[in-house]
Amino acid sequence: MMNGAECLLRTLLASDVQVCFMNPGTSEMQFVAALDRVPGMRAVLCLFEGVCSGAADGYARMAGRPGSTLLHLGPGLANALANFHNARKARSPIVSIVGEHSTEHLRYDAPLSADVAAFARAVSSDVQVLGCAKDMGRAAGEAIAAACRPPGQTAMLIVPADFSWSDAGEPGARIDPQPRAVPDARRIGQAADLLARAQTTGLLLSGSALLEGGVKAAGRIAAKTGVRVFADRNAARTASGRGRFHPERLAYFPEKAELQLAGLRDLLLVEAKTPVSFFGYPGRRSTIAPKDCAMHVLASLEEDGAAALELLADAETAPTRLEEPPALPWGGTLTLDAIGQAVSALLPENSIICDEMVSSAEPVWPHLLHAARHDYMPLAGGAIGLGMPLGIGAAIACPDRKVLVLEADGSAMYTLQSLWTIAREHLDIVLVVFANRRYRILDVEMRRTGANGFGPRAGEMIDISHPELDFTELASGMGVGATRAATVDEFVQQLAAAMQHTGPRLIEAML
Amino acid sequence: MMNGAECLLRTLLASDVQVCFMNPGTSEMQFVAALDRVPGMRAVLCLFEGVCSGAADGYARMAGRPGSTLLHLGPGLANALANFHNARKARSPIVSIVGEHSTEHLRYDAPLSADVAAFARAVSSDVQVLGCAKDMGRAAGEAIAAACRPPGQTAMLIVPADFSWSDAGEPGARIDPQPRAVPDARRIGQAADLLARAQTTGLLLSGSALLEGGVKAAGRIAAKTGVRVFADRNAARTASGRGRFHPERLAYFPEKAELQLAGLRDLLLVEAKTPVSFFGYPGRRSTIAPKDCAMHVLASLEEDGAAALELLADAETAPTRLEEPPALPWGGTLTLDAIGQAVSALLPENSIICDEMVSSAEPVWPHLLHAARHDYMPLAGGAIGLGMPLGIGAAIACPDRKVLVLEADGSAMYTLQSLWTIAREHLDIVLVVFANRRYRILDVEMRRTGANGFGPRAGEMIDISHPELDFTELASGMGVGATRAATVDEFVQQLAAAMQHTGPRLIEAML
Repeated sequence: MMNGAECLLRTLLASDVQVCFMNPGTSEMQFVAALDRVPGMRAVLCLFEGVCSGAADGYARMAGRPGSTLLHLGPGLANALANFHNARKARSPIVSIVGEHSTEHLRYDAPLSADVAAFARAVSSDVQVLGCAKDMGRAAGEAIAAACRPPGQTAMLIVPADFSWSDAGEPGARIDPQPRAVPDARRIGQAADLLARAQTTGLLLSGSALLEGGVKAAGRIAAKTGVRVFADRNAARTASGRGRFHPERLAYFPEKAELQLAGLRDLLLVEAKTPVSFFGYPGRRSTIAPKDCAMHVLASLEEDGAAALELLADAETAPTRLEEPPALPWGGTLTLDAIGQAVSALLPENSIICDEMVSSAEPVWPHLLHAARHDYMPLAGGAIGLGMPLGIGAAIACPDRKVLVLEADGSAMYTLQSLWTIAREHLDIVLVVFANRRYRILDVEMRRTGANGFGPRAGEMIDISHPELDFTELASGMGVGATRAATVDEFVQQLAAAMQHTGPRLIEAML
Repeated sequence: MMNGAECLLRTLLASDVQVCFMNPGTSEMQFVAALDRVPGMRAVLCLFEGVCSGAADGYARMAGRPGSTLLHLGPGLANALANFHNARKARSPIVSIVGEHSTEHLRYDAPLSADVAAFARAVSSDVQVLGCAKDMGRAAGEAIAAACRPPGQTAMLIVPADFSWSDAGEPGARIDPQPRAVPDARRIGQAADLLARAQTTGLLLSGSALLEGGVKAAGRIAAKTGVRVFADRNAARTASGRGRFHPERLAYFPEKAELQLAGLRDLLLVEAKTPVSFFGYPGRRSTIAPKDCAMHVLASLEEDGAAALELLADAETAPTRLEEPPALPWGGTLTLDAIGQAVSALLPENSIICDEMVSSAEPVWPHLLHAARHDYMPLAGGAIGLGMPLGIGAAIACPDRKVLVLEADGSAMYTLQSLWTIAREHLDIVLVVFANRRYRILDVEMRRTGANGFGPRAGEMIDISHPELDFTELASGMGVGATRAATVDEFVQQLAAAMQHTGPRLIEAML
């Protein structure tokens, strides 16, 4: 007989779901045992479930096909939810398998009993609780199909343990992902009409419209019409770097973003939603486009925005923008500006940048546009603790590309366990930790929410300087070699060495 | 005017909610700012939300009054859910305050927008979303009342940011916790009748029945009637140690627990549920009492089990059991047995033990009964990642008592960030990490679920030996002094020193 666990594994593999980030427990043991009977699944052990979900997100964003996770009951799923939230906003296809107590055991209130589906529904509208073992192949196939359905989501499959150890019948057939629909000629024509009024029309790109093809087409449109092109700052993945067209990234703070969009009367949304600020603030509206600016959907979240842009763009190739690599900074104490400059000078061609810089982002970010061509990935859902897991997933999806994780020190602490998996899998990841010893973004946000700033007790709640974190020890304790840089020259030397080395390296940048 | 945040803080303080474990963000800045205007709240910063919820659980279990948490939006709450699950099973009173986007902002799908209430409902049936600022005092009062309502639970109060910065009116009045009802004379009489058949009657204690008074009364009942007294192994807190009566703790594996309960025809439940195994296994039922054993509720989860036991017990004092402290072990490589013996010899009177030993528990546990009197706290809900947070809460609730956290290495990695808060607050906590470099419990569980053991690929999923974790570096990187012990003599010497020292110390016990 083929038991449910083996049937599940075979169904995943039939549809090219080839990587599973896992932190299994008792109820998932049959799935783990099946790894030896069924070859082909890369099982990546993580020491905390938030690493699993974040890595699956990073994998899906870079591989363009679903990653999977294997988690233990309600609490195991709970630990993964924050990064499933990010994956939801990134529209990443993920098949999340969650073990559940055996059906007989479920009627009792055992210590680990919980409403697993309730945890799942908080981040997913595709939640299946397997009803019998024989249903495994079909249900797993549906989960894969749901994960891949545009725009992409986490499909949750909750598997009672007895269905893993019972006879399950045949695996599900291969699922071919549903292609994204291309907007029809009418919509393209309307957009072309709006582009004629280039002074007051903008394009806002997100989703797959920010991948190579979409960015290139947008560049041709901009060159031809003079229209302004903007990018969702939280989009899952953006093709960036020297020589590429750079849509204007919407700023984090709404007053800056409002200035960017000032004067627009029409905004064409390409796999993007109506732009809003990150938070709401007293006396300020949430939308950032001018009040009388009309929103037009050129491509919905489910459609192919890149294809729509291609149809809009001139067939001519845009002029190639030639640009020299930036010079290396030198001398003096380390600054965010110098870090940005060093990164842009030293980043290898075709790298992947995972950005969890938070308050350090603004000075560094402009430099990255001048780095060699790369893919850029931020926290799509704003939940911190994603930077390093995202790097794990990207490195596993793209083993031949260097991954650079730019990580704030406060944020690094949420899923610090990532370092162990990075070392274990010997992933080609360079991590830069921005050690400002503060939840610095909150310095700004405190004032913005109208609170009267920080008294001594409030100040303590954003000061993480005591005890002082030592990321070289933390990294070393999990098997990742690490150094500290306090000067520009130290940073440049350490970053250059890390970029030349293959495998993990962490640099704690002392700010 | 008094804004909502200040009103909330004053309402909490009016009812002696004096400690808040927090990891705040933008939407909670008003609450943080209010800490300087309203004195009295001890704000404890944690670098990960699971530390907050676990610490609030530990605090509530030891203080006997609600702890509180302050968390940031859906993802912040998500990270806290696994330990809220544990708190739910421990029936700990907790007021959980979760910031939400401002109401105006909520209608948009901003990156951090999520269904916060859906996250909350997965672990709590007391979820309030504040509807207007003026309602703050009443809603906060209701949350406190709900948290304290027997048997105790986490009350979730979701606070849109604009209600924190708007005029809120008066704080809520002081809430006095509702006392637990005492079972009536009829039920006591029925129980007394059953106790007359001592050979076939048992008592199963959980909840407050396992605190000092309940255990003492149970001892008197056992001495008088010869009845067998059992303890729920997942009960929130048990008074234990030398000279105390020791109810027989139900074993983890069901075949052992079944033997313990063999021959019973009646089981009196004292704040306990029908006993079931931790997991379900193929071909084995979940309940562990004999099939024909009748369950009788002496005290429900909401009632006062200790009082019920007092009523049942003879008025005479039970004979005091005098016992010499155990001798120290010496010589040889470190074993679990030696650790248990050393702990029982060196534990100071009136300590608190937090147990997250997992597979290491069985050999250590019997020794603890011979340690000086202490309170013992396990993972009530079986979700790992609670040991160290529980220690934080206990140490803050009981600053004059030594806290000993017994921690498995795999489990320690889930909420490792706890070490930073332990160092920051200079808590009097000794941590022993059992370094067996394996999810060892799964060695056993794999076989039990009927899987055919571990092939090489499955084996990798429970082997955490490479890269090797170094807990001395991990602890030091967060400001906690740590040592390693590979021999019995090293362990005894390091544990003795740690017990004499005031403040945090970690010992990595190399097994």
